[in-house]
Amino acid sequence: MEVFVSGASLLKVDKYYENGLLDLAVASVSQLEAQLSEQKPDVIILANGYGEVTEEQTQLAGKLSNALGLKVPAIRVENADASGGSAVFSAYSLVKSGIAKSALVVGAEKLGDFPSSHLNDVIAQNLDEEFSYRAGVVPQAYAAIQMKLYMKKYNLPREYFAEWPYQMHKNAAENPNALLKFPVERDTILSSQVVSDPLRLFDTSARADGASAILITNEEVARKTCETPVKIEGVHFSNAGVNLRELLSVREAVLPWREFRPDFYEIHDSYSITAAMILDELGQERGKSLYSLDQLQVNFSGGLKARGYPGGATGVYQVAEGFLQITGTFKGKRVKDPRRGLVISMDDLGSTAISIALSR
Amino acid sequence: MEVFVSGASLLKVDKYYENGLLDLAVASVSQLEAQLSEQKPDVIILANGYGEVTEEQTQLAGKLSNALGLKVPAIRVENADASGGSAVFSAYSLVKSGIAKSALVVGAEKLGDFPSSHLNDVIAQNLDEEFSYRAGVVPQAYAAIQMKLYMKKYNLPREYFAEWPYQMHKNAAENPNALLKFPVERDTILSSQVVSDPLRLFDTSARADGASAILITNEEVARKTCETPVKIEGVHFSNAGVNLRELLSVREAVLPWREFRPDFYEIHDSYSITAAMILDELGQERGKSLYSLDQLQVNFSGGLKARGYPGGATGVYQVAEGFLQITGTFKGKRVKDPRRGLVISMDDLGSTAISIALSR
Repeated sequence: MEVFVSGASLLKVDKYYENGLLDLAVASVSQLEAQLSEQKPDVIILANGYGEVTEEQTQLAGKLSNALGLKVPAIRVENADASGGSAVFSAYSLVKSGIAKSALVVGAEKLGDFPSSHLNDVIAQNLDEEFSYRAGVVPQAYAAIQMKLYMKKYNLPREYFAEWPYQMHKNAAENPNALLKFPVERDTILSSQVVSDPLRLFDTSARADGASAILITNEEVARKTCETPVKIEGVHFSNAGVNLRELLSVREAVLPWREFRPDFYEIHDSYSITAAMILDELGQERGKSLYSLDQLQVNFSGGLKARGYPGGATGVYQVAEGFLQITGTFKGKRVKDPRRGLVISMDDLGSTAISIALSR
Repeated sequence: MEVFVSGASLLKVDKYYENGLLDLAVASVSQLEAQLSEQKPDVIILANGYGEVTEEQTQLAGKLSNALGLKVPAIRVENADASGGSAVFSAYSLVKSGIAKSALVVGAEKLGDFPSSHLNDVIAQNLDEEFSYRAGVVPQAYAAIQMKLYMKKYNLPREYFAEWPYQMHKNAAENPNALLKFPVERDTILSSQVVSDPLRLFDTSARADGASAILITNEEVARKTCETPVKIEGVHFSNAGVNLRELLSVREAVLPWREFRPDFYEIHDSYSITAAMILDELGQERGKSLYSLDQLQVNFSGGLKARGYPGGATGVYQVAEGFLQITGTFKGKRVKDPRRGLVISMDDLGSTAISIALSR
């Protein structure tokens, strides 16, 4: 059975001090109200990575279902930052199999209420070995080591990595739904605060609140409720663990797409180094991919870097942005002739990766 | 496609101060090693309700996958106490649809390291309206109101509810994997500490650590890897919100099983009152069901009350116990001629319920 994205909405990534997580989730769904009243979803999948700690709330999926007045199975999927892609995988499976005609996937996260010191602690709970977190290690330290090893391997200057935030801020400046809607000079990037040498502030992603909703449906529902459905060609999931030298999870997750030739990508750029390593796995010349950003249509949203990083909701944002690009309704910088897009949803350091291929 | 439970294992519900959540999860899976080496699962679903707070860990599913050396999609499902049933629903769907031939479902939770005062705070995060939790209300207060309303409606004495813990402790006394393996007199129950009047300590469930693993497979894998596979007749999921007078979620979830006539039940007895309300929905005479426990084959495990309550892992335990009963390998009190069993997995107050029907 063919599977489609037949609707997408997203809130500007921002700091919504006056709203709770469920408020944001409901707001993102309300933009799909016309479609939902035509076809009630059979299931709700909520992608949320950190709500138990940040919101002090469990069973958010059931609460969302009740808040929406939809008495359907509702499940929260938590795979940290990869929650979004994991939720899309779950919904895709349910529709592909015929168990659901229509699945409402909602990604929602609130990170904007907290100072970095606290958030570093929360995000560090991702770390692959639980003792790392308990010893006070944070993911930024791992990313800094990845960066050092990469610089050595490809004999690269520190300046190389500034290309990513430079391009992301340029993209975000055109995206009204981005958190950091301003261009930044390379000098500013290179002189920003050191987080964990050689990683600087502009090499990290911009945490904030967000909610995004997409409808994943079978063909019949897609034709009935959407003028411009976008096909999901497939979803591939890889668990390969953290590796400091290579993104094995991404390599495995994109293997089935060798012949797919996407016109654009939305990738999970936790850090500048992560972006470089993902682009390498996507077929760019290794160690040079950030020099070819002008020729690549990647993260026109502005990425985690500048569109902003709403935790476990990110993968849902990425698919929503892919849908908006392909349907020609994205409000920011438009991909040229966007027939095929590839989304890479990941956790912070790439232990888990999910690839989602979209086509017109 | 028909779906089977083709293997089950569970650890004694207990306080494992020396082991982490992943240790317990791995230990429960290791009992299925022979089957897993014959047929690698296509997916891992981890049921865990509270790990972000109790273990300070996210992405536990990916970590479990890595710990097991299984590079397959791994997803954590969190629906608070209903996580177990939700994980079974997800795995059942994946196998039913043909997407997975074999799904490894693991339920794991650690609640035993903490004093009640802290756990009440954690479990209160389930409450339907987030303001309840923030106002300091805990679920026991809701259960006490349910109990009062029920006593008034059916003109019942407080003594009525002592029947449930009395029977559960009798059952658990025969179950080597139960936490509270001792019988208790009705007088002890009725004079135990008041938690929230009229709810007393023995009316609540016994929180502790636990891990359970089940294999959910298609028929081909079931026949290949298991001598005595148990069929899953279906899984039904209902989200109806918290209701003080009726368990609407259970009513909806059991509706499709009116003709099923189970020989035994494993139900989510968060409180004595919850057990009474569930039994009413299962067709017992309303307001009298706890007086017929001698005629009912319900919670031969000892239930949450006395087998113990390992949070979001509970639903996986229940299905494992159903499998062991039907295959005649349960180590405690045996059901007579156990051809059909019905599991009710729920969250604490019954906002969400999942029914899982098993048959020989």
